Amino acid sequence: MTVCTTIAECREHRGKLDRAALVPTMGALHAGHLSLIDIARKRAPHVIVSIFVNPTQFGPKEDFFKYPRPLEEDLAKCNAAGVDLVFNPSVEEMYPKGALADAAAEQVHLDIPPLTGMLEGRIRPNHFKGVCQVVAKLFNIVQPNVACFGQKDYQQLRVLSAMAAALNWPIEIVTCPTVREPDGMAMSSRNQYLSDAERQRALSISRGLFAARDEFDKGVRQTNRLIATVQNILLNAGTQGRVPLLIDYVAAVDAITLKNVELISAPTVLAVAARVGKVRLIDNVILTP
Amino acid sequence: MTVCTTIAECREHRGKLDRAALVPTMGALHAGHLSLIDIARKRAPHVIVSIFVNPTQFGPKEDFFKYPRPLEEDLAKCNAAGVDLVFNPSVEEMYPKGALADAAAEQVHLDIPPLTGMLEGRIRPNHFKGVCQVVAKLFNIVQPNVACFGQKDYQQLRVLSAMAAALNWPIEIVTCPTVREPDGMAMSSRNQYLSDAERQRALSISRGLFAARDEFDKGVRQTNRLIATVQNILLNAGTQGRVPLLIDYVAAVDAITLKNVELISAPTVLAVAARVGKVRLIDNVILTP
Repeated sequence: MTVCTTIAECREHRGKLDRAALVPTMGALHAGHLSLIDIARKRAPHVIVSIFVNPTQFGPKEDFFKYPRPLEEDLAKCNAAGVDLVFNPSVEEMYPKGALADAAAEQVHLDIPPLTGMLEGRIRPNHFKGVCQVVAKLFNIVQPNVACFGQKDYQQLRVLSAMAAALNWPIEIVTCPTVREPDGMAMSSRNQYLSDAERQRALSISRGLFAARDEFDKGVRQTNRLIATVQNILLNAGTQGRVPLLIDYVAAVDAITLKNVELISAPTVLAVAARVGKVRLIDNVILTP
Repeated sequence: MTVCTTIAECREHRGKLDRAALVPTMGALHAGHLSLIDIARKRAPHVIVSIFVNPTQFGPKEDFFKYPRPLEEDLAKCNAAGVDLVFNPSVEEMYPKGALADAAAEQVHLDIPPLTGMLEGRIRPNHFKGVCQVVAKLFNIVQPNVACFGQKDYQQLRVLSAMAAALNWPIEIVTCPTVREPDGMAMSSRNQYLSDAERQRALSISRGLFAARDEFDKGVRQTNRLIATVQNILLNAGTQGRVPLLIDYVAAVDAITLKNVELISAPTVLAVAARVGKVRLIDNVILTP
């Protein structure tokens, strides 16, 4: 496994590989990432993982500085998973400053407003601009044939698919199912921030989504009923404890347009964002009639 | 010479070529374009020309529908110039509608606000968003190693250089000098719209710029003096005729930041945009102290 920290090295090593699949990550790799790597390996003979905590997708009050960066463990996991190339640049390498930099270039705006005004984009105003920017950079640096993204960040997946299509990147975007803990909790690098009590409280997110999915499977198509089911479980389950849970949103949106859905007649994403203690968590299920 | 009208064909033929230089055009090729092709051929063993009148860079009141489209002549000129591949897609091919299209994807915003708020960008609000969009698409469809742009559209050149740098496209952007008629008028596909009297009137644009450049060469560094020289020639030369000339701007801006310059101490672009009859013309000279 080769580890590159500069763009030039990465291009050079990439040039030696044939078809390759990219798994973009911010590190702190868990079983969800390893599942992306497994899927990537099935799609192309070579797998490239980027590990980069991208500052431009964090808000000023978010957890950029305390985001976990266990690089040694991440590299060991990539190596064990048969990854060919890891690209692990510094912030300076990706966003150069000083004489070499093009100051204006740092202010490129790349966005797809019809897909970023709702859900995460409404709560985190510049988040998707940062995500589009860094993924466009990674696409052009790594030039993968395939790129794998997890369904857990559904809006991100949708925005990046639309971006790749709109600008004709010759890259197939692969949707990878959310990997969950045995109790149903969606894997996330931020789960490690949770205390035991918070983790129990946070479990109501996946429980709420699963309960709504059960109702959907039994024929319920009105999203206000499904949303109410999720909200009730989020707000009532575990109120005996002293751990608060704040809902950012519970929403049912069309899987393509991300517009709100009232009556489900096409694939619909039931999505939750909530804060438990200081930890912000998201999860979703896709309801396909 | 191969002519492709679909993205799939273009990718297929591109795949058979080694290093290639792209010359993006809207057709109506003149000696300026042929000079870009000559420069392209010196930079790479293969030359690809795109001919596409891009609707997204025209304003609602601009000349998209009447923009000249002499395709047969253009192809003959490309062939004679030794071009390997011409990409000549339809609007539908570049911006698909209907079942195949991703409606949201058509609304991708790609912009570099610090470079697009002034000069052309101020007069033509969505122009550079359209330019960035179509050039990003062409970069990803053609995947050239080199792309050639003319200095006449200086702001466009600057915006696209910054875009390529910001998003790490592995493409070298080459600046090509403005080609002029023997009398000094900058070559433009829109010159053919001009009547003889209008053309005489329009000549004051290059004359004004050259007069200011002469002053600069004699040591003048205050841009208000250089701008006044251009304005005087634009407004006074030929007032004996009945052809009006309206100035959109005469500006002196830093060649990198495009910010206004008062005293020239670094490469500075002296730029003019003016309307003669219904024809809008731009031109510039670069003043390097």
